[in-house]
Amino acid sequence: MGDPGSVGIVKTQHLTFAEPPQEMLLECGRSLGPITLAYETYGELSAAKDNAVLILHALSGNAHAAGYNQPGERQPGWWDIMIGPGKAFDTRQYFVICSNVIGGCKGSTGPSSVNPQTGRPYGLSFPIVTIRDMVNTQRELIDHLGINQLLCVVGGSMGGMQVLQWVVSYPDRVRLAIPIATTSKLSAQAIAFDEVGRQAIQSDPHWKEGDYYGKPIPRRGLAIARMIGHITYLSERSMHQKFGRKLQDKTEYGYNFLADFQVESYLQYKGDNFVNRFDANSYLYISKAMDYFDLAQPYGTLEQAFSGVKAKFLVISFSSDWLFPSYQSKEIVSALRRVGAQAIYTEIQTDYGHDAFLLESEQLSSLITNFLSHGRRGAA
Amino acid sequence: MGDPGSVGIVKTQHLTFAEPPQEMLLECGRSLGPITLAYETYGELSAAKDNAVLILHALSGNAHAAGYNQPGERQPGWWDIMIGPGKAFDTRQYFVICSNVIGGCKGSTGPSSVNPQTGRPYGLSFPIVTIRDMVNTQRELIDHLGINQLLCVVGGSMGGMQVLQWVVSYPDRVRLAIPIATTSKLSAQAIAFDEVGRQAIQSDPHWKEGDYYGKPIPRRGLAIARMIGHITYLSERSMHQKFGRKLQDKTEYGYNFLADFQVESYLQYKGDNFVNRFDANSYLYISKAMDYFDLAQPYGTLEQAFSGVKAKFLVISFSSDWLFPSYQSKEIVSALRRVGAQAIYTEIQTDYGHDAFLLESEQLSSLITNFLSHGRRGAA
Repeated sequence: MGDPGSVGIVKTQHLTFAEPPQEMLLECGRSLGPITLAYETYGELSAAKDNAVLILHALSGNAHAAGYNQPGERQPGWWDIMIGPGKAFDTRQYFVICSNVIGGCKGSTGPSSVNPQTGRPYGLSFPIVTIRDMVNTQRELIDHLGINQLLCVVGGSMGGMQVLQWVVSYPDRVRLAIPIATTSKLSAQAIAFDEVGRQAIQSDPHWKEGDYYGKPIPRRGLAIARMIGHITYLSERSMHQKFGRKLQDKTEYGYNFLADFQVESYLQYKGDNFVNRFDANSYLYISKAMDYFDLAQPYGTLEQAFSGVKAKFLVISFSSDWLFPSYQSKEIVSALRRVGAQAIYTEIQTDYGHDAFLLESEQLSSLITNFLSHGRRGAA
Repeated sequence: MGDPGSVGIVKTQHLTFAEPPQEMLLECGRSLGPITLAYETYGELSAAKDNAVLILHALSGNAHAAGYNQPGERQPGWWDIMIGPGKAFDTRQYFVICSNVIGGCKGSTGPSSVNPQTGRPYGLSFPIVTIRDMVNTQRELIDHLGINQLLCVVGGSMGGMQVLQWVVSYPDRVRLAIPIATTSKLSAQAIAFDEVGRQAIQSDPHWKEGDYYGKPIPRRGLAIARMIGHITYLSERSMHQKFGRKLQDKTEYGYNFLADFQVESYLQYKGDNFVNRFDANSYLYISKAMDYFDLAQPYGTLEQAFSGVKAKFLVISFSSDWLFPSYQSKEIVSALRRVGAQAIYTEIQTDYGHDAFLLESEQLSSLITNFLSHGRRGAA
């Protein structure tokens, strides 16, 4: 807390909009309102309102990207390594914003929210939301904050999908874009992993077609979904280095079905832990939003989707990321360059796999610091 | 059936041994008996008994490797592309043997077998079996058939683990060894996927600590385990080529949690189908046997494990196999060469992933045909 690089204590705020009868029309064709977004801000908005950075989170993220919500909290926000005084998103220079996505379970409207029309949680009656819907609700927040143009939109994984959607949906409102470890469309393999995770949740007898609020929750199913996801976030090599075939609290095989290997205990811990902080229905909705993401699809080609973009790009991928492999970032860069957009591309060499966007702070920081300072001057 | 390359109608046979009080001591320290192995043979054993090929199956395989068990059967045995008159394992030349592993559910003794002491299925009271136990039971079968030395042991994936164990446990009894798409020890990532599959089975309320025989079976859990496995058997590229983002029986997103994409329907089909032909407890036992496999562990190093081997080797891996990546086959080959063993290594370029050992019949066939004919002559 006394850390000079920390933004310190921050309070999560809430914005509610789309009050009936002005509901928001979603991509699925249904309307939703009211909609609340939980968000946090760090740093100060300049008088010219030209220093705002919008941080976009991944599947299991939330609005709490930096600092502490209360004194004594053990863990800071999820991207604290990147946000704060003197860090890549330097809060002495930039006004940093992060909001929880619609469909989430961390203060924004989602399947666990109470439907005001029924007085009960939405559950599966919540409409399917898409990456575009996430971005449209974020635009409401940016309007509310009085920001005409964002200096930068940035995010990894699903956050990177939102970055790409921002520059396509609202080309005049973004100066700099940093999609990290992402793709313009989810691959068949990634859809397959998501679907198995959803099957695990939906097979849990406690799931009850999503109507489990106030009752025992589908802990086992959600834990299994998280375990599957977690394997895909790590590289084979990083798992080998971290765990190998090391045994957990024993020197010989147990010859039973309890966890023998450290990697098993680790995954079980990760799964069990996740259940205490995430809603199973939100997992279904958000993973589905990722599966549906196909930036080019409404336009025909990726070039056509990008034809109106005005932002400058820093595209980053990680060499050992097999969930969102580098070739997918290269496709984005090629399409951007073919339509004349400025795009810098860097593949960071790392063993951390997809999770590297949360871990490789040093290389990420220096790349982003340079890009922001040049980009800011260039467009001034 | 009129196919001249088919072995035609074959009958599965059974051998029972280790009758009490002569039970077999297993690696876990427990004894088991009686033990039955289901097996099939194709071709004729030569008078010199020097033409026997032992085929070793993977996780979900069985003794029925070639031909048909009855007229009108839709699918031939699981490696029919490789076994038959004129094929790589030419039944005009070779006497081919395949048995179901101990712990399995296709006629060999496993957790679904009736424990003669209780009159009820073993369930979880069945002892943990290992790859070495599988090989020790196969040795009983080979003894029973009167074969002193096998011309060749061959298998892919878990079958390849058994190949490696054969040459180490019984160096005098194998002339040629062909481990395909395998490893000398399972990686942390592969253990992790196995553990998630087991968690899915054990989380199914119908599993009931393995005591589900004669009651509703843990269908959902086993289907999820199989879906996870299936993703790991395919390469990202082959999934992209086969499915991409193609929708199933629709032209637009469904905006619900039913399967939208072909890859989802395919996996669900594969999972549901598997449940009808495989026992959930056998899945637990056999996947655990794979996790425990570490050929070097009792010896210290892989070189020491291989120090007494006498067989000649053809080691084959597949370029797009990310579950048993080529580097793991290369480690085997390096260790063999360091102890002076003859080892040919080939990496087959293919997009099929781990499953290629069941699919790449043309390249596999020509490699194996050459190796067998040279190897047979060389040692004569």
